[in-house]
Amino acid sequence: MSVTAAKGFTAAGIAAGIKENGNPDLALVVNNGPRRAAAGVFTANRVKAAPVLWSEQVLKGGQLAAVVLNSGGANACTGPKGFQDTHATAEKAAEVLGVGAGEVAVCSTGLIGVLLPMDKLLPGVETAAGQLSEHGGEKAAIAIKTTDTVHKTSVAGKDGWTVGGMAKGAGMLAPGLATMLVVLTTDADVDGETLDKALRDATKVTFDRVDSDGCMSTNDTVLLLASGASGVTPAYDDFAEAVRQVCDDLGQQLIRDAEGASKDIKIEVINAATEDDAVEVGRSIARNNLLKCAVHGEDPNWGRVLSAIGTTKAAFEPDRLNVAINGVWVCKNGGVGEDRDKVDMRYREVHIVADLSAGDATATIWTNDLTADYVHENSAYSS
Amino acid sequence: MSVTAAKGFTAAGIAAGIKENGNPDLALVVNNGPRRAAAGVFTANRVKAAPVLWSEQVLKGGQLAAVVLNSGGANACTGPKGFQDTHATAEKAAEVLGVGAGEVAVCSTGLIGVLLPMDKLLPGVETAAGQLSEHGGEKAAIAIKTTDTVHKTSVAGKDGWTVGGMAKGAGMLAPGLATMLVVLTTDADVDGETLDKALRDATKVTFDRVDSDGCMSTNDTVLLLASGASGVTPAYDDFAEAVRQVCDDLGQQLIRDAEGASKDIKIEVINAATEDDAVEVGRSIARNNLLKCAVHGEDPNWGRVLSAIGTTKAAFEPDRLNVAINGVWVCKNGGVGEDRDKVDMRYREVHIVADLSAGDATATIWTNDLTADYVHENSAYSS
Repeated sequence: MSVTAAKGFTAAGIAAGIKENGNPDLALVVNNGPRRAAAGVFTANRVKAAPVLWSEQVLKGGQLAAVVLNSGGANACTGPKGFQDTHATAEKAAEVLGVGAGEVAVCSTGLIGVLLPMDKLLPGVETAAGQLSEHGGEKAAIAIKTTDTVHKTSVAGKDGWTVGGMAKGAGMLAPGLATMLVVLTTDADVDGETLDKALRDATKVTFDRVDSDGCMSTNDTVLLLASGASGVTPAYDDFAEAVRQVCDDLGQQLIRDAEGASKDIKIEVINAATEDDAVEVGRSIARNNLLKCAVHGEDPNWGRVLSAIGTTKAAFEPDRLNVAINGVWVCKNGGVGEDRDKVDMRYREVHIVADLSAGDATATIWTNDLTADYVHENSAYSS
Repeated sequence: MSVTAAKGFTAAGIAAGIKENGNPDLALVVNNGPRRAAAGVFTANRVKAAPVLWSEQVLKGGQLAAVVLNSGGANACTGPKGFQDTHATAEKAAEVLGVGAGEVAVCSTGLIGVLLPMDKLLPGVETAAGQLSEHGGEKAAIAIKTTDTVHKTSVAGKDGWTVGGMAKGAGMLAPGLATMLVVLTTDADVDGETLDKALRDATKVTFDRVDSDGCMSTNDTVLLLASGASGVTPAYDDFAEAVRQVCDDLGQQLIRDAEGASKDIKIEVINAATEDDAVEVGRSIARNNLLKCAVHGEDPNWGRVLSAIGTTKAAFEPDRLNVAINGVWVCKNGGVGEDRDKVDMRYREVHIVADLSAGDATATIWTNDLTADYVHENSAYSS
C-alpha cells in the first residue's frame, strides 16, 4: 500500500535522530520512472516554511525524481539559513540518487522556528537511500508522523494502474490549503498537466474541506508523482476519480486521528444559492468553538449552528433555516423543530445538516469536537 | 455606581422565576428625564433574537423611557411567538410605568431556541417597577448575569455630569458587534445624534475589539440613555472620552471574567499599513486555537503567531515580521529572535506585540486563552 503500491516507486523510512525520542523521522520516496511527471499544491498561508518555498519552485518544472520528508522540525520561520538547509537536503538526495537537485522536493513538519539538525538529517538521507525498497511505503508513512497516533495510507485504481498515498496530520488542519503532508504516487502514464488538474480538483473537495481546528499551517504540501510504469493511460475521469478517492480516504483518516478529538463531525450544507455559499457556511459552523464544545458534550445545541450561519455573507433568510442533527430536524424555519431529546449523539460520528433554503448547491465540511484533550495536547508542550 | 450613578435614572433587579435556580433574572432601568434621548448598537449576526429586532426598531425614534432586561433565556430563534413575547414585555413595562411601548427597549440573554416563561416574566416586570430606586443599579447589574461570576459596573465623568453603566457577558464574546448586554446611562444634557456618535466611536475601539472565543451572539446589545438631569452639556470630546472610558472598563471586566479563562491576552498590532490591517491581524491571532492553548500552557510559541498572521490579507513581508511576548522579542525578521526562555508567562496578563513593519497604524485586540475549563463550561450543559 502507501506510496509504493504503484509500480515504479521505492521508499524508505528511518530514524535519523532528528526527533529526540528516537522515533522514525525521515522518509524518502523515489520515482524510478520511466516517467517523472509531478504536481503539487501547497499551503495558502503567506508565512511559508523553507521546504514549501523550495518545493513550489521545483514543481514549476513539472518533474520530480524524489521527495525527502522529515518530521521533528518544520523548518519554518528559520530565515536564510533554513532555506539553505532545505537546499542542502535536496542536493544530498540528488547526489546519492544520481538525479538533479531541481527534481527533489522537500517536506518538513514539526515545531516552527527551530533549525533542523543537519548533522543528523544529511547522513539520514544517505542511510534512507540505502534502504529504498518497493515495500518501503509503510515505513515512509510511519516516519512522517508527528502527534499522529496511527500512520495513514490509501490506495485506489483499476485496469492495471494504481494510485497510492500516505499522509500525516493531527492538529492544524484547516482549509484553503493542502492541510498536511501528503505524497501520492501513480504508475498511470499521465503527464504533469493532467496530474495538476486531477490533484487540484481532488484537493478542492477533500483536504480543503477538512477543518479540524481552523488553524492553517506554514508547511502543508500535497504532491502527486507519476512513474508511467504501468504503461496505461487511463481516461481522465477514471484517473481523477481514483485520485479523489485516495485524497478523500486520507482526509477522513486525518479527521479520525485529529488531536484530542472524540467526535468526527460531518457538516452538510444543502440548498445553498452557490457552492461558495455552502462552503462558507460549512466552515463557519466548523469553526464555532461553542458548537464544538456542545458536540463534545453530546448536546444538540442547534442555536449555536444558527448563530454560526448568521455570521456569514451567504444568501439565506433567518426564518427559512432548517437544521438536522443525526437525522432529527431540531430547527425548522429558524425556530424550534422536532424534540431535541430524540437526538442520539452517543456515537463518534455526528452528522449536522444545515438547510439554507436558498438554492440547490451543496458542500460537506468535516471537523472535530473541541475537547479538554485538545487543549492539553496543545498546551502541555511546544508543537 | 452602575446605571443609577447618573442623575435621573432608577433601576431594579429581581428574581422573577425565569431561571430555574431562583437567581435574579429580571432588571428594569428607567429614565425619568427630563430628556429621554437614546442610542444603541446591536449584534452584526444576521440571525437576530426577537428583542434585538424589537429594540432596533424602537431606537429609530431616538428615545427610550425604559429598558427591560432578562437573563435565563435569549428569546432567539423563537419565531413569531418569540417576537410577540418581546412586544408583550414592552407593553407591560409601558403600562406599569405610564409610558409608550415604543419607548421601551428589551434585552434577553440565555439559551437560544427556548420560549420565555411569560407567566413569570410579565408579573416580574410589575414587581420590578415597584422596586425602582436610585440605588437599584447594582441589583440590576446582578440580575442580568448568566455564567458571569461577578457583576460588572463602571462610572466616569466630570464637572457635574456622569456616565455609568452595567454589562453582562461571559462566553460568546466576539467583535463586529456589541458583544453582550450593556446599558449605559448619563445625566449629561445630550441629544440622540450625539449619543449615537459617541457610542459608535466608543464601541468600535472597545467592545468590538474584545474577542474571547470568536463566537458572535444573536442577542448582543449596547444601549446609551441620556436623562439631561445634570443640566450640563459637556464638550463633545469630553463626553465621548467618558463613554469610551466606561466601555473600555466594562470590556476589560468582560475579558477578565470570560468562561474558563486563565490568561487575559492583549494583542497589540503595530506598524501596520492601515488600522483595518491591524484589526484583521489582531483578530486572526486572537482566534487561533493553537496559540490560545500555547498561552494557557505558558509556552511562548511565536510560530503560532506568525502562522496566524500568514492567513490574513494585511500588507506585510514574512521576513520583516517581529513578535514580542511579554517584552521579549522572540521573533525578529520572521525568524528566531531573543531567547524564548527569557519570557515570563506566569502571570494572568499576557502581552503579545506583532510588528508588521508595513506602516504606522496600530490596534489592540483582547482575548483569552483556551482552557479545559472553557470546554467543560460549554459542553457540560446547554447554554
